[in-house]
Amino acid sequence: MNIKNYTIEELNDLCAKIRKKILETVSKNGGHLSSTLGSVELIAAMHYVFDPAKDPFIFDVSHQAYAHKLLTDRREKFDSLRQFGGISGYTKPSESKYDYFVAGHSSTSISLATGAAKAIKLKGEDRIPVALIGDGSMTAGMVYEAMNELGDIKLPTVIILNDNEMSIAKPIGAISNYLSQVMAGNFYQKIKKQTKQILEHLPEGATYIAKRFDESMKLITPGILFEELGLEYIGPVDGHDLEALIEAYTLAKKMNKPVIIHAQTTKGKGYHIAEGYYEHWHGVSKFDIDTGEPLNKNGAKNATKMFSEALLDLAKKDEKVVGVTAAMPSGTGIKELMQAFPERFWDVAIAEQHAVTSMCAMAKEGFKPFIAIYSTFLQRAYDQVIHDACIMALPVVFAIDRAGIVGEDGETHQGAFDVSYLRAIPNMTLFAPRDEASMHEAVKFAHKMTTPCAFRYPRGAFTPIPYKAKPMELGKADLLVDTDSEILLIGYGAGVGRAYETMKLLDKEVGLLDLVFVKPLDETLLTQLAAKYSRWYIFSDSAKMGGVGSAICEFLAQNNLHEEVKVVTFEYEDDFITHGNTKLVEESLGILPEQLAQKIH
Amino acid sequence: MNIKNYTIEELNDLCAKIRKKILETVSKNGGHLSSTLGSVELIAAMHYVFDPAKDPFIFDVSHQAYAHKLLTDRREKFDSLRQFGGISGYTKPSESKYDYFVAGHSSTSISLATGAAKAIKLKGEDRIPVALIGDGSMTAGMVYEAMNELGDIKLPTVIILNDNEMSIAKPIGAISNYLSQVMAGNFYQKIKKQTKQILEHLPEGATYIAKRFDESMKLITPGILFEELGLEYIGPVDGHDLEALIEAYTLAKKMNKPVIIHAQTTKGKGYHIAEGYYEHWHGVSKFDIDTGEPLNKNGAKNATKMFSEALLDLAKKDEKVVGVTAAMPSGTGIKELMQAFPERFWDVAIAEQHAVTSMCAMAKEGFKPFIAIYSTFLQRAYDQVIHDACIMALPVVFAIDRAGIVGEDGETHQGAFDVSYLRAIPNMTLFAPRDEASMHEAVKFAHKMTTPCAFRYPRGAFTPIPYKAKPMELGKADLLVDTDSEILLIGYGAGVGRAYETMKLLDKEVGLLDLVFVKPLDETLLTQLAAKYSRWYIFSDSAKMGGVGSAICEFLAQNNLHEEVKVVTFEYEDDFITHGNTKLVEESLGILPEQLAQKIH
Repeated sequence: MNIKNYTIEELNDLCAKIRKKILETVSKNGGHLSSTLGSVELIAAMHYVFDPAKDPFIFDVSHQAYAHKLLTDRREKFDSLRQFGGISGYTKPSESKYDYFVAGHSSTSISLATGAAKAIKLKGEDRIPVALIGDGSMTAGMVYEAMNELGDIKLPTVIILNDNEMSIAKPIGAISNYLSQVMAGNFYQKIKKQTKQILEHLPEGATYIAKRFDESMKLITPGILFEELGLEYIGPVDGHDLEALIEAYTLAKKMNKPVIIHAQTTKGKGYHIAEGYYEHWHGVSKFDIDTGEPLNKNGAKNATKMFSEALLDLAKKDEKVVGVTAAMPSGTGIKELMQAFPERFWDVAIAEQHAVTSMCAMAKEGFKPFIAIYSTFLQRAYDQVIHDACIMALPVVFAIDRAGIVGEDGETHQGAFDVSYLRAIPNMTLFAPRDEASMHEAVKFAHKMTTPCAFRYPRGAFTPIPYKAKPMELGKADLLVDTDSEILLIGYGAGVGRAYETMKLLDKEVGLLDLVFVKPLDETLLTQLAAKYSRWYIFSDSAKMGGVGSAICEFLAQNNLHEEVKVVTFEYEDDFITHGNTKLVEESLGILPEQLAQKIH
Repeated sequence: MNIKNYTIEELNDLCAKIRKKILETVSKNGGHLSSTLGSVELIAAMHYVFDPAKDPFIFDVSHQAYAHKLLTDRREKFDSLRQFGGISGYTKPSESKYDYFVAGHSSTSISLATGAAKAIKLKGEDRIPVALIGDGSMTAGMVYEAMNELGDIKLPTVIILNDNEMSIAKPIGAISNYLSQVMAGNFYQKIKKQTKQILEHLPEGATYIAKRFDESMKLITPGILFEELGLEYIGPVDGHDLEALIEAYTLAKKMNKPVIIHAQTTKGKGYHIAEGYYEHWHGVSKFDIDTGEPLNKNGAKNATKMFSEALLDLAKKDEKVVGVTAAMPSGTGIKELMQAFPERFWDVAIAEQHAVTSMCAMAKEGFKPFIAIYSTFLQRAYDQVIHDACIMALPVVFAIDRAGIVGEDGETHQGAFDVSYLRAIPNMTLFAPRDEASMHEAVKFAHKMTTPCAFRYPRGAFTPIPYKAKPMELGKADLLVDTDSEILLIGYGAGVGRAYETMKLLDKEVGLLDLVFVKPLDETLLTQLAAKYSRWYIFSDSAKMGGVGSAICEFLAQNNLHEEVKVVTFEYEDDFITHGNTKLVEESLGILPEQLAQKIH
């Protein structure tokens, strides 16, 4: 959509329409709301000053980019937002040529802009990378790695810092404090005027001092932190004032250097119910626009809540229990713990590496840290898991939420790889609860471990199963159904429910095993079962390569049981998995119980 | 060693002795030299002011901590430094109670200090974490994640910034520029004196201005960047002046806040041949103290050099070829490329995440990036490999150096896990050269790939084999020896040489396959071979869990060939692997060809 000839009034009208469309769509489909409503003008001004067909438009995390979708070729399809087969809730180059990069994880934008700037220079093209990044994304270290290079090579780049004092949860940390101070007022301008006269009356030879004074005053203006890192700074700018934004962007475009534009916005702007509120309106399920009340409340208790309650029980009993989340207090259920024990549970902002390593030090000091984190985000602290937790063999616990398919967030958020990437690490123990009762057992078991361990659980609720959970024992599986059949269904975590549902659809009795531990395996029981069951079907919401089935194949080969047992695993094939309603996605992968029962037949 | 009652003179004598011992030992055993010589006084002063039995002494990367080892309980064993069975070149709690944490990867120290500070507060103890971090480690984002929390919670912590304008290679980036400016002089002190008088003569009402002036002048002093992040700043201090250091440390200890002490040191201090030089003297093999010349020059060309030459050939032919190293220009062989094509090859400092993601943007722009990185350090960019390279399916190449056992650096540096952690990622292709000629083929093949790929090669030289390398084809293995035996040896990468050496020691003819690709596997050939060979032995310098053998077991199970073939893999067991001469380490693991030949018998 070409808006280059629009007047400011027309642009404001357009922004109002975009907001309306976003609000309507998200209220029906669910999605990210407050950040995307807050950045409508920021994005409209990007489209006015820059060219999305030419300049790389780089949206950090990109859940704030709905306006960009509406301004490019997704207007017609916008109703399908986050639906299976519909458009993604994030930027996605396969969806539109106007989307430069995939971005579902935060803090990659300045690195991408730096790489793009290098490429543009080498090609000698007249283009400029424009990155839009929220203040929440500024806490992740990767941003500094990128600024360290960009501030040194100084290639033309525009970085729009969308400061709404918010990542997903409340703002945290020194960076946030710093940005807030900046926002506090136009201190420098005032002082400068007041002092100018005084300085004019200084004795001779004071010119140098006066100049220094001026320079040093500038240093206490907002930009100092960025200027020290070699970036030019413009701001703060009202992020809802299109005229001011266009002026700032136009200036930045001409500067031929890396420039950071600091814009202040209001989260939820234009929807009075959401304006100013923190975490709740970040990402939402469908809701009533008039009241803001969620529609279709889901009755089943989700695994996150089960974890949160189990950990709260434990934390009440043992004051050595501590914990951390990296900017996902509600998402991981750590919020309740932070409220109950503010001295022992922390949100360290989007900083997964630091979250893991700082908790390793706490473990060294005799505490029992629970690191509650999504499977996909633990990827960001992989080296810390190896280098700081596992080489040290410390009793840290990784409580891995969102294991398996996560639904509408799609490719970037699927929890597919944790079994594969964690299993290879020495000193690591891996297990998984299958329902609410076993979640309590998992938390209790983790509490007793004296070396690193991780347990995984899905987004949403577990499938109910009728078997009673037992206390967990290291490396002990749980044989739920033993029969004379040659078929054994083996479930891991949420896979136990899937195996159980599948079992009910089979026309004969089969065995059912809850593996409980994928590392170490219950070698004794598996050896016995190999003598009895010759066809093993593996159910786990994880990638096939290096996953649960792979662990079992390794075990069989190493124990000369490979001839006895045929292993078939129903884990995820070697593809990134698309977004949409989880059940529809699972159906497309052929892993619904009715489909699996067919395959077994 | 209690040095609390030493005079400054005695401390200086002690430092001289420590330097002598370090120099003698490293000249015999090899090891890290310039950074460890540079930090002798920094560490002696730590022992003077703080208590290593009580206060957490946290050494970033910890290769600079030899003086600490000599000051604690490793004096007698110091001759065994980095030897198999001897003391580690890094801090290691299992070696001494005075070593707080393992640290072989950089930039973890401030996170550890933050965690320790939280623990100390909770326990109400009278201890203080003391971290020693080099300026090179300040480029990694993790440091900022930690400062973001520490500057906010403000718990007592002392961070000693050892600024010798060097990580391993030349200093790079905005942070380094910033620190250099700081070092340029004691500007603030001078100006302050000069201006004090002038300000006294200002008209009435100027008190506020004077105060502001003073405050704002402070802002152009060194500490600004850190102070903006909420840390107190002391410095710069001469890092070889024990009196100044003791004064600064003592002050910091009393401040009851997080304090950063900025100390300037000379790399290689005390050994005139190494003083001031960059990369060469960072880590060395044994050398002649008098001349600085290396002893025992190894004649065999190492794999890094082969890679560097092959990439240089390619870069000459195709100007779209670009590349990056994260602070390891010599170690990865990218140095030669940076010299030949300074516009197309970069060192982005210790910033693995940024290195990967910025190159992904270059790939998007039509370039062909080679990311040369050690196996162990690619762990630090795991999410970027998944999220920015593989979801986007971009043609980036990961050239994975130091795959397998790396020798004296030990546990933290072994390249054991890359096959396991990369294989699970969709859109990734994995292969490996086996010798110099196939390294050229690997680079050529990587060049043609239009999606992400990674190839791995060892530290040091390949074992020579007499088979001619062929051009690589996607997913095609290379059957080197075909026999009527039931035994097939399958090698991957350097494992081909190991398999070949083992084959020569067997008393019968066996088959020999170079797998070439572990992803995708050569399913056609493997199916044929399964019909013929019933015992497969896997040779690969990688972890067993999720490794090459695991990939083959998965393949056999999925293709109903599990009954036909018995797979035995000689990959690494599920343990962290200790330091020492590679051959001795391999012997301890039972993976020397003569040991493997025995096992096959």
